[in-house]
Amino acid sequence: MRGVSIVGIGQIPVLSATPEGLRTLGAAVVRSAMEDAGVERVDALFASNMLADELQGQKHIAALIADEAGLAGIEALQIQAAMASGAAALRMAYLAVGSGEADLAVVVGVEKMSEGAASPAMSKALDAKEVEDGATLISKNADILRLYRKRYKVPEDGLVNFPVVAHANARHNPNALFRELTVRARDVLTSRMVHDPLRLLDCSPICDGAAAVVLCPTEQAQTHNPHPVRILASSVATDRFRVGDRANPLWLQAAHDSAGKAYRQANLNQEDVDFFEVHDAFSIMACMQLEAAGFARLGQGWRLAAEKRIDLRGDIPITTMGGLKARGHPIGATALYQACEMVLQLTGRAGKNQLRNAEVGMMQSVGGAGTTVITHIFGV
Amino acid sequence: MRGVSIVGIGQIPVLSATPEGLRTLGAAVVRSAMEDAGVERVDALFASNMLADELQGQKHIAALIADEAGLAGIEALQIQAAMASGAAALRMAYLAVGSGEADLAVVVGVEKMSEGAASPAMSKALDAKEVEDGATLISKNADILRLYRKRYKVPEDGLVNFPVVAHANARHNPNALFRELTVRARDVLTSRMVHDPLRLLDCSPICDGAAAVVLCPTEQAQTHNPHPVRILASSVATDRFRVGDRANPLWLQAAHDSAGKAYRQANLNQEDVDFFEVHDAFSIMACMQLEAAGFARLGQGWRLAAEKRIDLRGDIPITTMGGLKARGHPIGATALYQACEMVLQLTGRAGKNQLRNAEVGMMQSVGGAGTTVITHIFGV
Repeated sequence: MRGVSIVGIGQIPVLSATPEGLRTLGAAVVRSAMEDAGVERVDALFASNMLADELQGQKHIAALIADEAGLAGIEALQIQAAMASGAAALRMAYLAVGSGEADLAVVVGVEKMSEGAASPAMSKALDAKEVEDGATLISKNADILRLYRKRYKVPEDGLVNFPVVAHANARHNPNALFRELTVRARDVLTSRMVHDPLRLLDCSPICDGAAAVVLCPTEQAQTHNPHPVRILASSVATDRFRVGDRANPLWLQAAHDSAGKAYRQANLNQEDVDFFEVHDAFSIMACMQLEAAGFARLGQGWRLAAEKRIDLRGDIPITTMGGLKARGHPIGATALYQACEMVLQLTGRAGKNQLRNAEVGMMQSVGGAGTTVITHIFGV
Repeated sequence: MRGVSIVGIGQIPVLSATPEGLRTLGAAVVRSAMEDAGVERVDALFASNMLADELQGQKHIAALIADEAGLAGIEALQIQAAMASGAAALRMAYLAVGSGEADLAVVVGVEKMSEGAASPAMSKALDAKEVEDGATLISKNADILRLYRKRYKVPEDGLVNFPVVAHANARHNPNALFRELTVRARDVLTSRMVHDPLRLLDCSPICDGAAAVVLCPTEQAQTHNPHPVRILASSVATDRFRVGDRANPLWLQAAHDSAGKAYRQANLNQEDVDFFEVHDAFSIMACMQLEAAGFARLGQGWRLAAEKRIDLRGDIPITTMGGLKARGHPIGATALYQACEMVLQLTGRAGKNQLRNAEVGMMQSVGGAGTTVITHIFGV
């Protein structure tokens, strides 16, 4: 397979509610990413969205966005892996370009959670039989957090720096939802209890957003963009679907397997990763990804936050532009925001959040409660 | 890209309603296709389903089916393109294997339309703004049929052989929904008017089903199966999303473009195609695909049916195992049924429906009212 690079990015500010419709948002970032890449036409469009079936009564969104963007005619498909859909779409575009079937592909993620009841639709990422019995994504994460704290004797404020760091980083990201907000440890610890022990500031917000990237073969990347970013690895792994069926509910096997495959593809290991865009839909997921991907031992990931090693000057920066927590988590768009932000970091355009010497970045997306995990590694 | 072949198939009988759940049906055909290929493990699973979000309250079905089939751990993604989702999943698996990222991939389609209201969920393949104004897939196809008949002066019984031939062929397909039914021309012409001028027997049925295929590199195919079938082409094209935005509502541009790309990939033309599994969700779609793919001139496709040139002994057999009309159209599974049936035809296992000298077969899937069209060409 030939090498694949990112040569264009497009993102709009994440908002609690956008006036524009789904197709308009999607088409806007497609055109913006194509303009960034200096291309008028692409061979294929891969779209990600999780909730339009329920919230907008709309399926078939890849062809819809292609048409709205003036690209009717091209290949256009939608890829689904629950909350990891954006990364799944990125992976399929990577295969389309890497295989030689497409020379230019755009990947677009869009979600408009402000219309209708997002939470019940999101819970469909879990086993419907469990949902019938009352499970939600929030209850699943609350259960995991409770068990994690108890088993590993984590103090009540042990994970508090996950949202604190995310919010601090969001302040300098013009596309972040919470760029005006300052969040301190005590704000997290006193925020509303959503589902004991999960508090409001442990959870990512409901919001609208859209982001896109343009891919091309690495050998052609310089013709489109003087500063392309290479996709060094792309991998998907799954785990047992239900948390209760796993040998250890506190271990993200899919995150471990997916990261392991990605390290092998990129021929590097976690020590070579300069920053890690985690899927911090809930702080506990970020913590467990750090462990699964090899940055901390089982039960010790929270210490990376407690010791501030995850901030911009730490040894393993995460959520460098705000993460899901503070940039926002418009689900189908989230991994595309991550990808855009990683391109900014790797090309020295991350503004006040710019990391020093960022040459290799990793991102993970999680579908369901750790069921599907998709890892990408980018480099310059 | 390396060549890709089909080395295993699995299908269950299409039924009006199955007692088993979605995941059970999906896992059953996955295991059955893997057994046919003689493999215990695959690298990746690509799943197709259109309606489980609404009808079963279940998303994230690729990982769910992988787990149920005992394959938890592997890459598992769901691909969506409305009613063409099965072909979209087949295409993504083709890219995964062709690119070298997977050596064995299973593609599974499953749909359980017997639970809940399938029709409103299906209409989400159209523009939600049109649906608000009363459009349904049936109304769109009725409009097209009315215009087609008028513009091309087609007699009332002009298209009647599409369902007649499909039902005749279904009688010898053990997996067909309507294998007990005899349908004559006058049955079609006197069947209930569903949406003028569409009658019941012009439309494919609501039903449950599941089918799967296993892919591997052509160079390894003989190690799995002495009679592999090669995928000679795989292509996707889209059209303007709304029928009303197209220059000619009676011309399937996406079917033309998709077939054209496929002919070029396979380095052959329509004269080399021995049979054509069309997407006869409505007879008029089959008719228009024959025109778009080059088997008849615009406005003349119905004559291929009227002159019986589409039956098993005709020059361009279609719906050789019953088609969507009579085998059934469990949406997400449909293209996988088509693929299984084409493998049977190309390997001389189609029983009483066996075509003479079938060496090259083509299949098309249509999403929405001609918006997305996916073409595959298979050969031995």
